[in-house]
Amino acid sequence: MNAKSLPLKPSSHLYLLFLFLGICVSSAQNNQKRPPNFVIIFADDLGYGDLGVFGHPTIKTPNLDRMAHEGQKWTNFYVGASVCTPSRAALLTGRLPVRSGMASNKQRVLFPDSKNGLPAEEITLAEQLKQVGYSTACIGKWHLGHKKQYLPTNNGFDYYFGIPYSNDMDKTGGQDYKEAANQGASAIRMEDYNVPLMRNTEIIERPADQNTITKRYSEEAISYIKKNKDTPFLVYLAHNLPHIPLFASKGFLGKSERGLYGDVVAEIDDGVGKILAALKEEGLTENTIVIFTSDNGPWLPFKTHGGSAGLLRAGKGTTWEGGMREPTIFWSPGKIKPAVITDLGSTMDLFTTFSKLGGAKIPDDRVIDGVDLSATLFEQQESPRKNMFYYRGTDLYAVRLGDYKAHFITEGAYGQFEERQEHATPILYNVNEDPSEQFDIAKEHPEAIERINALVTEHQAKLVKGKDMLAERE
Amino acid sequence: MNAKSLPLKPSSHLYLLFLFLGICVSSAQNNQKRPPNFVIIFADDLGYGDLGVFGHPTIKTPNLDRMAHEGQKWTNFYVGASVCTPSRAALLTGRLPVRSGMASNKQRVLFPDSKNGLPAEEITLAEQLKQVGYSTACIGKWHLGHKKQYLPTNNGFDYYFGIPYSNDMDKTGGQDYKEAANQGASAIRMEDYNVPLMRNTEIIERPADQNTITKRYSEEAISYIKKNKDTPFLVYLAHNLPHIPLFASKGFLGKSERGLYGDVVAEIDDGVGKILAALKEEGLTENTIVIFTSDNGPWLPFKTHGGSAGLLRAGKGTTWEGGMREPTIFWSPGKIKPAVITDLGSTMDLFTTFSKLGGAKIPDDRVIDGVDLSATLFEQQESPRKNMFYYRGTDLYAVRLGDYKAHFITEGAYGQFEERQEHATPILYNVNEDPSEQFDIAKEHPEAIERINALVTEHQAKLVKGKDMLAERE
Repeated sequence: MNAKSLPLKPSSHLYLLFLFLGICVSSAQNNQKRPPNFVIIFADDLGYGDLGVFGHPTIKTPNLDRMAHEGQKWTNFYVGASVCTPSRAALLTGRLPVRSGMASNKQRVLFPDSKNGLPAEEITLAEQLKQVGYSTACIGKWHLGHKKQYLPTNNGFDYYFGIPYSNDMDKTGGQDYKEAANQGASAIRMEDYNVPLMRNTEIIERPADQNTITKRYSEEAISYIKKNKDTPFLVYLAHNLPHIPLFASKGFLGKSERGLYGDVVAEIDDGVGKILAALKEEGLTENTIVIFTSDNGPWLPFKTHGGSAGLLRAGKGTTWEGGMREPTIFWSPGKIKPAVITDLGSTMDLFTTFSKLGGAKIPDDRVIDGVDLSATLFEQQESPRKNMFYYRGTDLYAVRLGDYKAHFITEGAYGQFEERQEHATPILYNVNEDPSEQFDIAKEHPEAIERINALVTEHQAKLVKGKDMLAERE
Repeated sequence: MNAKSLPLKPSSHLYLLFLFLGICVSSAQNNQKRPPNFVIIFADDLGYGDLGVFGHPTIKTPNLDRMAHEGQKWTNFYVGASVCTPSRAALLTGRLPVRSGMASNKQRVLFPDSKNGLPAEEITLAEQLKQVGYSTACIGKWHLGHKKQYLPTNNGFDYYFGIPYSNDMDKTGGQDYKEAANQGASAIRMEDYNVPLMRNTEIIERPADQNTITKRYSEEAISYIKKNKDTPFLVYLAHNLPHIPLFASKGFLGKSERGLYGDVVAEIDDGVGKILAALKEEGLTENTIVIFTSDNGPWLPFKTHGGSAGLLRAGKGTTWEGGMREPTIFWSPGKIKPAVITDLGSTMDLFTTFSKLGGAKIPDDRVIDGVDLSATLFEQQESPRKNMFYYRGTDLYAVRLGDYKAHFITEGAYGQFEERQEHATPILYNVNEDPSEQFDIAKEHPEAIERINALVTEHQAKLVKGKDMLAERE
């Protein structure tokens, strides 16, 4: 080989070599420095038993099943409340809703005529991540205040596409839902629910076309991921289904053996599959953590239009396990070790875990209920979460500590007969041995009750209840 | 190259070549001709909801979960009866136990003082396969007659290692099981159950050491597979646990968060893992079909010592779904396509499917209730099974046809209060949409009841009830 045939001088070669090495190093540094992306997929009223991998016989969820096989299936994962508004507040603030005022004994959730929303002084996960350079999107149901100052765009999200409250609100006419449900999917008219669909702070469609809404949410999430792949991002995708009224798009309608409810869950599952595929396509899988869970248990009075909590007791609205334990999957190939995790976790922990991973400081001027789950996710270490407080409105109904759960007050869900009852001696279950909460062992384990009582005393000593933000309506 | 340097003449080369080709062809023919091996792993009183992959939160079954992921998870798979003896008769004969006399309204199962067993004229799957050259082993619980003429070795099995009836029989003393269970695993004494362990027709240990029995059954299965790998084989491994009394060996005792019941299931799962590993080691995976299922639903009155039917209603002893639908997995890498199968199947179909695959003729002198599932297993075609008859003793309580199940009679399990009730108009459920059997839709679907009634008429016209083999005791 003749040196003269080279188009560049040897010194130029050296330059190119350094340039090349420089790029490699800087690219590696970027990869090291760049914090992970987060995708939170949050279903609405999906029960513990409603995914294939959580035991449903006829709801087919191949994408979520695969996600669980490749990732971590968490079987003791809780939400902060058993109804929409407080549960969402808990996830986004990392705090029990009783602290933020997003829990009330007068109104269980926000309505289209509610005056207030999430207080401005509350700090959301989106605000946390935005301050450290994340792009942030809220896609789907918000339900933390529909007035402009309460919307996602005023709570740390760069982008919002979705409905501001539940899909059964703004009912303008038509027959009762249960009657329509009895007549089949074609009797459920989206025109009867005048729910607005918003982009940022503008209403872009009213009523929202709920027949295609699940599909559009997944598409919006994918489009946001593709547009924002050059910065770290948070996508909070809060589907407004399978909360009634149930709607599915043409490709799914009438396809599931579980009926319309199964069609809806299959469409959500399909969206999950497409989101994971998009992450793969963009080469983002290893630096993205995806979590799938639900906001509360199944809405049982709606019969086959409500879901199933599987072997767990009761559902939405209650502090039984069926109300607050959710089918949860974490996924991040190469980072999160495939496993079944039976340790405790909570949606409130996402605030703490994702803030830390993202490089945001955890606020120290308030009580944060979330704990950092990253050592469990990445190294399968024991979860730092050892307890769970089950509030209904602003009353503490039950407390779990380790395997034991003590019920101080019990009460049935909406429309289901089980009167509120206070228990002088709490009912005690070992919920790992007895997940269906059937066998009271209070007499055999007074020491467990003592430890739980001590925990409650400590908890209540520090508790400052926020001003009720749900009660006032116009 | 010099021809002279060759140690053999050209003609010898040709000879070697033909020899080599001959071996290839004959080996390929052998592979083609050699029918598949079958391993049936049958748990006792394991509920529909008791495996991780069927939704249990704290029973860890990593091997069965993986088996389901690699194979087919069947979610509408039934046994022929909701208690031990008739369920086992159904599996082995491919016939409803009411036909063989292995069902009775006087005694639900066989006891140590029962006079009879499976009638000699019944043809078992083992007899079918033995006549076409299979090696056949029964390992574990038999429960089809403990007298010599009724034992496995007189019913087509070359080899038997196990207990002849349930592990809670021959109770010789000690406290009531429920009392012992309340005091914990150490209070459950295997000495209180004088159950014999047999090899072929000899008692080799009495009482059977139940602490190590699960482990020994799995080891026996592996040892039999290794010894008999040169012929096609059938291994029927019928664990006698998690039927009470519960026992687990040292490596498992006290390890599960689900308590002793979870320990027991974990040990069965461990055995499954070891059996699959042994099949891999011997290069037998592609020519072996493994099925895992259970004999009936969970024995609920034993509280945490009984299992869970998950979202299905009731358990063992009943004709509700929890009594007769079982967590079922088929596995044969490369042959069985991974899938979740929601079509109907039954343990009775193993008789027909495995007989056909093994090359044995289906008897034509009697009614066989099994159907051939192989097109579903290998090509994911629709299952030919469209219905299921739910007998309790010799009475037909319920019938499933497609999605619909009609209950003509309902009744609770042992020890659980739900009186026998005959329904002039049957209760009707869509068990795919409503797997928990909660919402009677008889009024809305008279056509489904009509079709089921026609099926019952047809069924009963052909039904010859066998002589009751369970009633007589000595």
